[in-house]
Amino acid sequence: MLRFELLATDDLARRGRLTLNHGIVETPVFMPVGTYGTVKGVLPASLMAMGAQIILGNTFHLWLRPGLDVLRQFGGLHRFEAWDKPILTDSGGFQVWSLGAMRKISEEGVHFASPVNGDKLFLTPEVSMQVQHALNSDIAMQFDECTPYQIEGQLTTHAQARDSMQLSLRWARRCRDEFVRLDNRNALFGIVQGGMFEALREESLSALAALDLPGYAIGGVSVGEPKEEMQRIIAHTPQRLPSHKPRYLMGVGTPEDLVLGVAAGVDMFDCVMPTRNARNAHLFTRFGDLRLRNARYKTDALPIDPTCGCHACAGEGGTGSVSRAYLHHLERCGEMLAPMLASIHNLHYYLTLMREIRDALDKGAFAAFSARFHADRARGV
Amino acid sequence: MLRFELLATDDLARRGRLTLNHGIVETPVFMPVGTYGTVKGVLPASLMAMGAQIILGNTFHLWLRPGLDVLRQFGGLHRFEAWDKPILTDSGGFQVWSLGAMRKISEEGVHFASPVNGDKLFLTPEVSMQVQHALNSDIAMQFDECTPYQIEGQLTTHAQARDSMQLSLRWARRCRDEFVRLDNRNALFGIVQGGMFEALREESLSALAALDLPGYAIGGVSVGEPKEEMQRIIAHTPQRLPSHKPRYLMGVGTPEDLVLGVAAGVDMFDCVMPTRNARNAHLFTRFGDLRLRNARYKTDALPIDPTCGCHACAGEGGTGSVSRAYLHHLERCGEMLAPMLASIHNLHYYLTLMREIRDALDKGAFAAFSARFHADRARGV
Repeated sequence: MLRFELLATDDLARRGRLTLNHGIVETPVFMPVGTYGTVKGVLPASLMAMGAQIILGNTFHLWLRPGLDVLRQFGGLHRFEAWDKPILTDSGGFQVWSLGAMRKISEEGVHFASPVNGDKLFLTPEVSMQVQHALNSDIAMQFDECTPYQIEGQLTTHAQARDSMQLSLRWARRCRDEFVRLDNRNALFGIVQGGMFEALREESLSALAALDLPGYAIGGVSVGEPKEEMQRIIAHTPQRLPSHKPRYLMGVGTPEDLVLGVAAGVDMFDCVMPTRNARNAHLFTRFGDLRLRNARYKTDALPIDPTCGCHACAGEGGTGSVSRAYLHHLERCGEMLAPMLASIHNLHYYLTLMREIRDALDKGAFAAFSARFHADRARGV
Repeated sequence: MLRFELLATDDLARRGRLTLNHGIVETPVFMPVGTYGTVKGVLPASLMAMGAQIILGNTFHLWLRPGLDVLRQFGGLHRFEAWDKPILTDSGGFQVWSLGAMRKISEEGVHFASPVNGDKLFLTPEVSMQVQHALNSDIAMQFDECTPYQIEGQLTTHAQARDSMQLSLRWARRCRDEFVRLDNRNALFGIVQGGMFEALREESLSALAALDLPGYAIGGVSVGEPKEEMQRIIAHTPQRLPSHKPRYLMGVGTPEDLVLGVAAGVDMFDCVMPTRNARNAHLFTRFGDLRLRNARYKTDALPIDPTCGCHACAGEGGTGSVSRAYLHHLERCGEMLAPMLASIHNLHYYLTLMREIRDALDKGAFAAFSARFHADRARGV
């Protein structure tokens, strides 16, 4: 099931509420990525404490490991990873696309060799639906072909983008049919493709809207294109999607991208950036980014962000805040605690940003929020 | 300051209470090891939640990184690592000994090249006291030479062990003098050496007892000797130490070793085993050890130990327990969450074991506890 209520709008920006089989999600929302059934480096209780409402799992990865037998034994991903709130899973399309030369795409699906053990595998729209059904994800994504920005060093042509988009459309129908056949009681989202061509994106979204799916995503962005190209698509597509259904911008992005996406009418986001950057000692804060490895932090007694309430910045359960100097030291020594605290901090920052956005939308003050957000981020840590 | 009260005894086993500058420690106690100012892979709040009373830091490592300038800026290790309960630091003796061919020992101290950057360094009893003073550790350990079990492939001879022990004794006096000169208000422990020779150990402990230090450790065990040799020393030395002072068995050991040590009159233990083994997917439980990588756990829906109350086995903050199958999966995928949850579990097990030992001693029921402990551990998971 999926119910979506639009609680408020502010120009194109939307404040909404999504009801799924495993609970309610206030939107706009950022969804932490838990590829293999774990948000990398974060304890389940930390995710809960920082107010994560919904997390992602990756169909491709979970299909390979632990595999469907194990996941079916646990009745899906929720109990397996001890997370009883909503879960969204991608379709595996982006991952097989990322395999590059190791895969072969046909009308039927994608042949590829398992990067884990070399097994020859065949992922189709039907298999993707079967895996996501076994995962029991609250939101399943259609299997699609992620249209690349470049093909063999050349910008993707209109004809290439059209063929790719039309393939994804045919796969969308097969996904819908298989989803129905499986009697899946969760929700299936379609994915708008069309590369950097607005007309193709409009063709894609019209055809998908005709399928009357419970939600729609914008795919094929954040695939190597210049920032302005991404911004052009974000300005174009979300507002053209059905207004009474949730809109999900896949794989995006920086804090600035999230604010831009909300302004353009996006309700849902996911990105590996907060956790991946944390593991590379790159911290996001209200006042700009902070690169922990910089020698200037060696003696810096301040917390990452004195206004932040995360485990690292404010302490938790009777422990105090930790300093930039301490985190710099942990990072230099290769201690696990550095990426652990950095991941908590970055995710906490992303989730707090979205909470502030929702508050601003509730008050009809998104423009003022956005102005302050940009001023704060430009201030510097 | 250090105050030690003996609350109860049961044959040689002792139930005590240690009051230090940063708080009270109920003994017998296990002290998690936080080499570089972090117990590897464990959040400060998790350590607090599992009831750790005192943690270790390593003088040698912290001297090299972050170095004394940074530690002095924070007034010592407590604020730097956001831990306001007691801290014990070793003297660096064991670490320089572990450098093997890279160091040169003389009467004055130990010359060695920094394993971090190759800098030529000179660690002496006085420097060790100065570093531990800067760390403001509640318990500082004397700088000693850790007498090895073998020297160049040959069992250490009586003459070699005697020379080494006597050097440590002379260093103990220099440490005491420097500790006083620095006006350090914490507590200094002496370390009994003497290798595997009981008579040398008695000579060492008599001379150290004459210094009237506030506590004593048994060093030079768990240095590659056979288990029976270690047991022989544990049976010999602790009971001969001054009964009104805390006794610390350094670097030991398995759960069975802890129970043996308590029975022999030991009050304090530290060991890297719970965290190091956790990172190698080796879990300790009430019912024996569990090697997570074993294929039999692939589909095992049980928690590590259904009777355990740790984050992994019982959940925390609204999350459920996780299964052996999930942990096996995380481990296979190289996910950080595997060592994170395993480290919490193993430390929780060690700390719970010590709490149960204290409860048994409070009730005068240590023998019954010990019998049940061995029966449970032999049962198998």
